[in-house]
Amino acid sequence: MGYDAQPGRRLSAADQLGVRRHNLSMVLRRLRDEGPRSRAGIAAETGLNKATVSSLVAELTDRALVRDGTAERSSMGRPGQPVELDGRHVCGIGIAVDADALTALVLNFRGDEVSRSRVPLPARSLGPDGVLDRLAELVAECHDRVAAGPGVPAGLTIAVPGLVESHTGVVAVAPNLGWRSVPLADELSGRLGQPTYPLRVGNAANLAALAEYSVADPADRDELLLLTGDTGIGGGAVTGGRLLRGARGFSGEVGHLPLDPAGLPCACGARGCWQTVVGMKALLTAAADPDDPVCDPALGRDERVAELVRRAEAGDARTIGAIERVGAWLGTGAAILVSMLNPHVLVLGGYFSAVGRWLTGPLTRELHARVLAPGAGGCRVQLSTLGSGAAVLGGARTALDAVFDDPTLVPKTAPEPSPDGRAVLAPGGPS
Amino acid sequence: MGYDAQPGRRLSAADQLGVRRHNLSMVLRRLRDEGPRSRAGIAAETGLNKATVSSLVAELTDRALVRDGTAERSSMGRPGQPVELDGRHVCGIGIAVDADALTALVLNFRGDEVSRSRVPLPARSLGPDGVLDRLAELVAECHDRVAAGPGVPAGLTIAVPGLVESHTGVVAVAPNLGWRSVPLADELSGRLGQPTYPLRVGNAANLAALAEYSVADPADRDELLLLTGDTGIGGGAVTGGRLLRGARGFSGEVGHLPLDPAGLPCACGARGCWQTVVGMKALLTAAADPDDPVCDPALGRDERVAELVRRAEAGDARTIGAIERVGAWLGTGAAILVSMLNPHVLVLGGYFSAVGRWLTGPLTRELHARVLAPGAGGCRVQLSTLGSGAAVLGGARTALDAVFDDPTLVPKTAPEPSPDGRAVLAPGGPS
Repeated sequence: MGYDAQPGRRLSAADQLGVRRHNLSMVLRRLRDEGPRSRAGIAAETGLNKATVSSLVAELTDRALVRDGTAERSSMGRPGQPVELDGRHVCGIGIAVDADALTALVLNFRGDEVSRSRVPLPARSLGPDGVLDRLAELVAECHDRVAAGPGVPAGLTIAVPGLVESHTGVVAVAPNLGWRSVPLADELSGRLGQPTYPLRVGNAANLAALAEYSVADPADRDELLLLTGDTGIGGGAVTGGRLLRGARGFSGEVGHLPLDPAGLPCACGARGCWQTVVGMKALLTAAADPDDPVCDPALGRDERVAELVRRAEAGDARTIGAIERVGAWLGTGAAILVSMLNPHVLVLGGYFSAVGRWLTGPLTRELHARVLAPGAGGCRVQLSTLGSGAAVLGGARTALDAVFDDPTLVPKTAPEPSPDGRAVLAPGGPS
Repeated sequence: MGYDAQPGRRLSAADQLGVRRHNLSMVLRRLRDEGPRSRAGIAAETGLNKATVSSLVAELTDRALVRDGTAERSSMGRPGQPVELDGRHVCGIGIAVDADALTALVLNFRGDEVSRSRVPLPARSLGPDGVLDRLAELVAECHDRVAAGPGVPAGLTIAVPGLVESHTGVVAVAPNLGWRSVPLADELSGRLGQPTYPLRVGNAANLAALAEYSVADPADRDELLLLTGDTGIGGGAVTGGRLLRGARGFSGEVGHLPLDPAGLPCACGARGCWQTVVGMKALLTAAADPDDPVCDPALGRDERVAELVRRAEAGDARTIGAIERVGAWLGTGAAILVSMLNPHVLVLGGYFSAVGRWLTGPLTRELHARVLAPGAGGCRVQLSTLGSGAAVLGGARTALDAVFDDPTLVPKTAPEPSPDGRAVLAPGGPS
């Protein structure tokens, strides 16, 4: 909604700053979503008066987030100087913490990749402090890349495979990292010298769901469920076109759905949790004997999955049977979530996507048999094309979103590199 | 967002109607949510220019949806004529279809009750056609009450305990009614002579969740999960402050969560579905022998539940044990949904609320044991105070919402009663 401070009501200074920021955000989003348009066009569409729009565009231009495009004669025959999105100097950084690696992705304002890197890391043996040190180093490297190229980091999002309290950035529980109550946002902020850009921590599957949303068909992505397979199983959902976050950011924790009271013991202490039948270990146990090379603990997840895919492609009955069994159990649990959420699309990520060719059939059969709504409520099953990069992509995009929410996060003049030529931090907050 | 058609861009006639309707809706909602304010205040807050606001208020006044209030000196010392919500003549009608009765509720524009009625009805033996005839009669009676009192029905919503395809109003499956593929909206529309106000059909538990949202604490109602006990168990959720509808309106279908592959057979053909351990029959079987008077099929649900409550209050160990067992199973299934959705509040409706005193303890214990997020993700368990009237309240409120979405649904002049003095239908659509 457009706000214009008019004489009928006097706003406080704080109100006025809030209104200004809101209007800057509205104009910037409109230029991103609807394309270049004239100041008069923006005024007509937003209900803001023309003087206000001119002042907003001037401020966004000062922040180099928009620029004047080429004047064209409009369809109505009036010449109009269009304004278009700029922001080439603004970057979003996403970093994913996994049990065996850190992955970083830097995107520019338009969402194109600036750099990507991966650092092997034994997260469990290092412990939270060791991981935080490595994280801080990787962020500094990203700052270097940003400074060497476009210029200013707009935000940083860390993706963690665990329960993250969204408003504090505390990792409550991350079983695969062996973490409990780790104040990741505060600790990392301290190591980075309190950067003033937004530093967020999010659940990896939730951020991956956002990434899947960003690349999905706009026609039916507003109701999207992501299930991603790894050591365990992660879930993330978009409902009504927005990420389902929950009260504290703990949504999508689906690994411990109790599917079978008589089932296998789970690391959580219960029996028959979903992850005991669809996690990587369940697949491996069914697909191979313990002395089979594919079970070698030295193998990375991707190599292990690649070997299983090779065997399935060669027609190995045991491998295919094991994948199909995972598919059926995946369908049993997915039927619960599909019954509750009624998504248009169920996206399979992580290792589920790699073995999708053999997994999807049994999954879909189970889904249709168990969901009461006709045709599984119209749910379409789809394999992710983002691979293991989904969480980090969702993180980098979330970091950029911060600028669209509050364009004043980007300073009015391009920042100078710091004396050591390394970290370049954007002064945050309204300026 | 406010739109003002300004000279910089010419809008088509259809665009202009859309913009006008959008702005009427925005002004009306603001007056409902923020209270009376002057035209200048509305202009200042919405960014619309004052001439536009005056014209919008004039139209809303013509439709008797707003009126001039008493002039007061504002805090700034400027006299301002406030505009306030009116709409006393506008009513929303909700009707709930249950296996044994129809319930109707008429609300005025402010959400106060105009009338409520209940008609016993053996839905299964009547079949869809018989139920539709009774439904049409009950709607006609509601029209009479509206015509005798405030004046104009703004919309009608039918709540059905089953899977309803929201955009067509087709009841796909309603096991407790014995319905499959019943085009309820079209059939009822036909019997009512194609009323031009919006006629909607919705899932009862989803509409009940909307009703719970409307009476819940605004501080934490934006993430709300309702579980309601009856023959089976129904679910509805609000996420991010909006009803979770799903792709086709099939969300919240939780009765058949597979909790125990070795469990009791369910009417759906599977084993160990959630409703086999928390539905009314499960409670009754555990609480009493088949020849116990409380099992008499002639008893209504409310009488049966009242008798069980009497026994529990008298300290009957078997009754209390049976309720506690239902509570534990309720917690097992609720843990799945709470893990996925991370709600602030879990509201227990239907018979769960009546026996809530004995149910909540075991439920909460199970929830805390099974949800991985600390403190069950902060989820608070709460008993519904709306009783069996929640669905019909959600329906009537939804019917009123249609006017806030499109104020042009209400005609500019009060309609005359039809020749037979009965049905008074509002001419719908833009006028």
